[in-house]
Amino acid sequence: MILAIDVGGTKMAAALVAPDGAVRRTRRLATPQEADAETLWKTLLTLIEPYDGFSGVGVGCGGPMDWPSGEVSPLNIPGWRAFPLGERLAARFPGKPVRVHNDAICLAVAEHWKGHGRGRANMLGMVVSTGVGGGLILGDRLVNGGTGNAGHIGHVIVEPGGPPCGCGGHGCLEAVARGPALVAWAQGQGWTPSRVEGAEQAEGVEGAERAEGAAGPYREDREATGQMLAADARHGDPIARAALARAGQALGLAIASATHLCDLDVVTIGGGLAQSGALLFEPLERTLREHARMDFARRLSVVPALLGQEAGLVGAAALLLGGDRYWAA
Amino acid sequence: MILAIDVGGTKMAAALVAPDGAVRRTRRLATPQEADAETLWKTLLTLIEPYDGFSGVGVGCGGPMDWPSGEVSPLNIPGWRAFPLGERLAARFPGKPVRVHNDAICLAVAEHWKGHGRGRANMLGMVVSTGVGGGLILGDRLVNGGTGNAGHIGHVIVEPGGPPCGCGGHGCLEAVARGPALVAWAQGQGWTPSRVEGAEQAEGVEGAERAEGAAGPYREDREATGQMLAADARHGDPIARAALARAGQALGLAIASATHLCDLDVVTIGGGLAQSGALLFEPLERTLREHARMDFARRLSVVPALLGQEAGLVGAAALLLGGDRYWAA
Repeated sequence: MILAIDVGGTKMAAALVAPDGAVRRTRRLATPQEADAETLWKTLLTLIEPYDGFSGVGVGCGGPMDWPSGEVSPLNIPGWRAFPLGERLAARFPGKPVRVHNDAICLAVAEHWKGHGRGRANMLGMVVSTGVGGGLILGDRLVNGGTGNAGHIGHVIVEPGGPPCGCGGHGCLEAVARGPALVAWAQGQGWTPSRVEGAEQAEGVEGAERAEGAAGPYREDREATGQMLAADARHGDPIARAALARAGQALGLAIASATHLCDLDVVTIGGGLAQSGALLFEPLERTLREHARMDFARRLSVVPALLGQEAGLVGAAALLLGGDRYWAA
Repeated sequence: MILAIDVGGTKMAAALVAPDGAVRRTRRLATPQEADAETLWKTLLTLIEPYDGFSGVGVGCGGPMDWPSGEVSPLNIPGWRAFPLGERLAARFPGKPVRVHNDAICLAVAEHWKGHGRGRANMLGMVVSTGVGGGLILGDRLVNGGTGNAGHIGHVIVEPGGPPCGCGGHGCLEAVARGPALVAWAQGQGWTPSRVEGAEQAEGVEGAERAEGAAGPYREDREATGQMLAADARHGDPIARAALARAGQALGLAIASATHLCDLDVVTIGGGLAQSGALLFEPLERTLREHARMDFARRLSVVPALLGQEAGLVGAAALLLGGDRYWAA
C-alpha cells in the first residue's frame, strides 16, 4: 500500500493506493492559496495525518520542481518556492521511500499503468486544461530527460509568431489551446457564456470528499470559463465550436511533431477539454492526419484518457508501484 | 572488431571498426543507382569481400526500413524495395550478429559514442543535408520508438501551412531547411550560384578510397547546389545568407519544440550545412533562445557535430560495440 498525494493550486488530495491500483480512503482539502510555506505544509500534514499502514509515499505536484529531489515551486502555489517537499516527507516518514514528480507526469504515468496506455510501450499522456502538460513514456519507461522535465508537450511550437506564452516564449501549444486562451479567443470573436451553463460554477471544492461530477474527470483543473465554453460548444454555439476546433488543430500539429520525433503508439488526452468529444477530436484528427503521413506516424492513435478524477493519485502511487518503469533517479 | 557498412544513394562504404572506435581499411564503391536488387547486393558483396577477422556486422542504411529486421527500402536506391538486407547479411556471415539501422540514427549514435554527445545522457543528433534527419538518445540509450523510427526531427512542423514535404505532409523542418529547398528559395529570390564555387562540384565520388575533402564531412550527402549556396553565403552573398538564416530559424524552432518535449542536454548538427558556422548557428540560436525560455530548456547547447566523413561507419559499428545502449530489439 502506498500513500499517494496530489498537490494542486486548488486542492490537495491523498489516498492509499493498492498494488493493483485501487484507490482507498481519498481525502481532500482546499489549498490555502495565500498561505506561507509552513501553513501549506501544516495543511498537508493535516490531510495525511489519518493514514497508516503504507510502505512508501508517492507525490504529484505542480511544477516547476527540482527533480528528483522534490524541491517544489508550483506556479499556482506562491507560498512554496524551492520548498523541500520531498525532504520534509522523508523526514516525516523515516525509512520509507518518497518519490515526488510533476503532476502532469503523474497523470501520464497513471494512464500508462492503468488506462489507455496499458501495454503500449510508447505513449504521450497529455492533459489539456488551464495549462497543457504531459508525460512521455518510451520503451515502456518514463522519460525524464536531463532534469525531469521531459513531456512538456504544451511548449511544442504550433504557431511561430503566435501569441505569447506563460513560459516566456510564444506560439506554444499551451498559448493557443489552454482553456483561458480559448476563452479569450472566443470572447474576441463575440462569444459570451450562456447563463445556464455558467451556473455550473457554483459547485466549489471544499475540504471534504466529493462525488465525481457529471462533467467528468479533472473538472477541478478547468478554468471556470473554459467549462462554459465547452458546454456552449456542446449546445451548438458556433464561436465556441470554432474555439474547440482551433484547440484541436493546435493539438493535431503538436502531436504530429511529437510522433515524428518519438514514434509513438498512442496519445491520451485528459483534462476538461478532452470531454468535448468529436468537437475537439475531429479537427485534431484532421490536422494530425494531414501532417502525419509516413507509415510509422499513421499508425498512431489518439484517445481520450480513461482515468478520471483519481488519476493523479494513481500516478503518484505508480512512481513506487511501477517498479523502475516510472522512476529512474 | 566489427565490420561496419554504410549504404547510401551515392556510395556504399565499409570498414573495420575497433572497440575504441578506430576506423580501419575503409573502402568505398559508387552505388549503382539504376541497378536491380541483386546487382546492388553483388556490389555490396564486392565491397565487403576483402574483410575478415570481425565478430559482427553493423549497417547504416537510408530509410525507410523495417526495424529491427533490416528489410530496407531506401528512398534514393529504387532497386531495393523491401530488400532483406539484414537477412542476407546474416546468411552470408552465419553465427555473427547483424544489426541494421537507419543511417541518420547511425550518425547520431556515432556522435553520442565518440563525438560531442559523449557523456551526455540526453541528445538529439541531427544531420542537415539533402534531407534533415536525426536520432534521439534519452537516458543514455537510443530511442527507437514503436517501429525504430524515432528521431525524425526533419518532420517536426515549423511552418503550419508551409511548403509541401516529401513525407506527404507540409511545413516540416525538412521541407524548409533541406539543401534543395534552400536553393529553390534562394533562386526564387534571384540568387544564381557564382562560377568559382560551382567548380567544386567537379570532384566526384568514385569506387576508391578518398581523402577527406577540405569542405569537410558528409560532403557526399550534399546536394551540389546546396554546397554552392553555402559557399556563396561564406563569400557574403546576401540572398545566400538569408537562405541560411531561414534554415537556422527553422532549425531553432524545431529544436525548441524537441527540447521542450525531451529535456535534452545537447543537440549536434552534422551534414554539409552545419559547416556554415555562424551563418547558420546565429539565427538558429536567436530563434531557439526566443522560444526556449524555461530553465530546463535554456541549458541546452547546440553544436556542430564533431565526427566527419566516417561517422556513419562509426555509428554502424556502435550498434554492436555500444553494448545495449544503441540496440534494444
